Amino acid sequence: MKATVFYAQGDVRVENVPDPQIQCPTDAIVRITHACICGSDLWFYTGKDKWKPGSRTGHEWMGVIEDVGSEVRNFKKGDRVLSPFSFSDGDCEFCNKGLQTSCLQSGFWGGENEGGQAEAITARFADATLIKIPEEVANDDGMLTKILPLTDVMATGHHAAISAGVKVGSTVAVIGDGAVGLCGVLAAKRLGAERIIMMGRHENRLAIARKFGATDVVSSRDEAAIQAVQELTKGGAECVLECVGTESSMQTAIGITRPGGTIGYVGVPHGNGTINLSRMFRSNLALCGGVAPSRAYIPELLSDVIALKIDPSPVLDMVVDLEGVPAGYKAMNDRAAIKVMVKLSSG
Amino acid sequence: MKATVFYAQGDVRVENVPDPQIQCPTDAIVRITHACICGSDLWFYTGKDKWKPGSRTGHEWMGVIEDVGSEVRNFKKGDRVLSPFSFSDGDCEFCNKGLQTSCLQSGFWGGENEGGQAEAITARFADATLIKIPEEVANDDGMLTKILPLTDVMATGHHAAISAGVKVGSTVAVIGDGAVGLCGVLAAKRLGAERIIMMGRHENRLAIARKFGATDVVSSRDEAAIQAVQELTKGGAECVLECVGTESSMQTAIGITRPGGTIGYVGVPHGNGTINLSRMFRSNLALCGGVAPSRAYIPELLSDVIALKIDPSPVLDMVVDLEGVPAGYKAMNDRAAIKVMVKLSSG
Repeated sequence: MKATVFYAQGDVRVENVPDPQIQCPTDAIVRITHACICGSDLWFYTGKDKWKPGSRTGHEWMGVIEDVGSEVRNFKKGDRVLSPFSFSDGDCEFCNKGLQTSCLQSGFWGGENEGGQAEAITARFADATLIKIPEEVANDDGMLTKILPLTDVMATGHHAAISAGVKVGSTVAVIGDGAVGLCGVLAAKRLGAERIIMMGRHENRLAIARKFGATDVVSSRDEAAIQAVQELTKGGAECVLECVGTESSMQTAIGITRPGGTIGYVGVPHGNGTINLSRMFRSNLALCGGVAPSRAYIPELLSDVIALKIDPSPVLDMVVDLEGVPAGYKAMNDRAAIKVMVKLSSG
Repeated sequence: MKATVFYAQGDVRVENVPDPQIQCPTDAIVRITHACICGSDLWFYTGKDKWKPGSRTGHEWMGVIEDVGSEVRNFKKGDRVLSPFSFSDGDCEFCNKGLQTSCLQSGFWGGENEGGQAEAITARFADATLIKIPEEVANDDGMLTKILPLTDVMATGHHAAISAGVKVGSTVAVIGDGAVGLCGVLAAKRLGAERIIMMGRHENRLAIARKFGATDVVSSRDEAAIQAVQELTKGGAECVLECVGTESSMQTAIGITRPGGTIGYVGVPHGNGTINLSRMFRSNLALCGGVAPSRAYIPELLSDVIALKIDPSPVLDMVVDLEGVPAGYKAMNDRAAIKVMVKLSSG
């Protein structure tokens, strides 16, 4: 089959690789119909994360069950499924707590594992990892596109909002106008936030933010951005969603959080991790979040997508086929696309 | 009157200063009967915090009302009171939320304000700041000593425990065997923690920790300490109380927190604030806490002290009079004393 493989900075290729195999009785083989390129894929694509040449890529995918191992109970050939960006056994302390990303047998798709930017994949711990897409929408192409962002960015934006303690009436600031930040706006709106300030600078992204529920936009950076939010909120936002992961974005987050407020952070941390603990200490700012346990969130978000209560699909602003994945990486890296959907010929 | 004044690293002196005056109608003059020297006083004493020569010292104090301004309603001459380590107006958004340390008119005793290591003090916003000690124990000398740690260290240890989410059945690790860490043990026990691991190395302090409820002791440092707690807890403690404030103690805290767990930090941050955000991110560790809003906690803690449910006074292991304050600083800096009580002749 064909799959996308990382070779070096800026160099991903679509190649022939061995077909996936059932290796454990809890595995399933899934024929992939839809995948995405993620903002976090750019960390290895740009060489900021060191990946081995030959690593498979893609952690966001959905598809159709092709075959199941002998212990798989929840799925059969032909079922339409989506996966969170990581697999988990469903059986340990952390899975039981809804923190599947800390599952002792957890791993992310891609890298040392099989990736989702491919024609097929071996889904590990299929019963625990995969979520079935209900029959009634399983062949609704538009609906499948709406569901696709739940594999990562919508679940991650939701985790930022949950971690920041967003509730009915909250004042929220969202740092980062990438797909996760935009989904953070949608998640905050869904949780009842009254005021949502989007911090970003790309007009097409800000338009989506407004559509998703942003009430205010701040387009300045660093100190000027901090001042702008401080003024808008008369002292800072109670809930701040940090959806970037750089030192400067964390610094901004700390600068705009209201005393006693919470930063929900989901941007993968890069840099040396220096943060202004003194300001956090003085103002009792809480820092919560991390890698999103998407598996825990997908069922409720999926219900809301199917019920047409939320639609995160506007973040998918470019579509490629599998052969087009390298061009998709380039477009995202050039900021020519917010997020690329990979639609496979089998989809 | 006499008061302690900071001059330079290692140089505090007891000197004659002007008597306190009612400057605002919300002020009260309090004759101080008891004060303390705090571990955090050592930051300026050792020159790590830059204080101006001539600064007054001491943020922990209790005493007897001597005079009140025209707008003070809750207190009259002769009332026995204690103060949290900061003053607050009782009237703003943050005071109403119980985060009095973020009060827009808040300040700490000592430094640019009057200090508590003195014969008397002008208590600002007396009605909002001070707490009355009930008449029935107001002349019980032993009880007053038990109450004294509520001015800071017991309230701060409690804030660490609350911030770390300690509840009935929790597994807790406490970093730092100073007075705050020891009070953190007592606070965790009071909140129902089942297992409390004290990390420290001074046998006299560990004895107090055991008395306060510690079930385990880890005396190694850094990586060895992290390993020891990881082994004891099979993967980390859910609740970690960081009661030191150095980079190394924060690093230890991050290393011993169970995935999905919370660090309650109350050690005043020193160093450049570099923290291992990557591990926090990967394991969804939350970092909560900051400077304790003692004013919010003192009433409930005071009730429990008076009811003999808790007694934090074992942390006070040395007593001096006002003239003995410089020797008290030296003893604390030499680790010859855990915490020094200053008992004034009027007490």
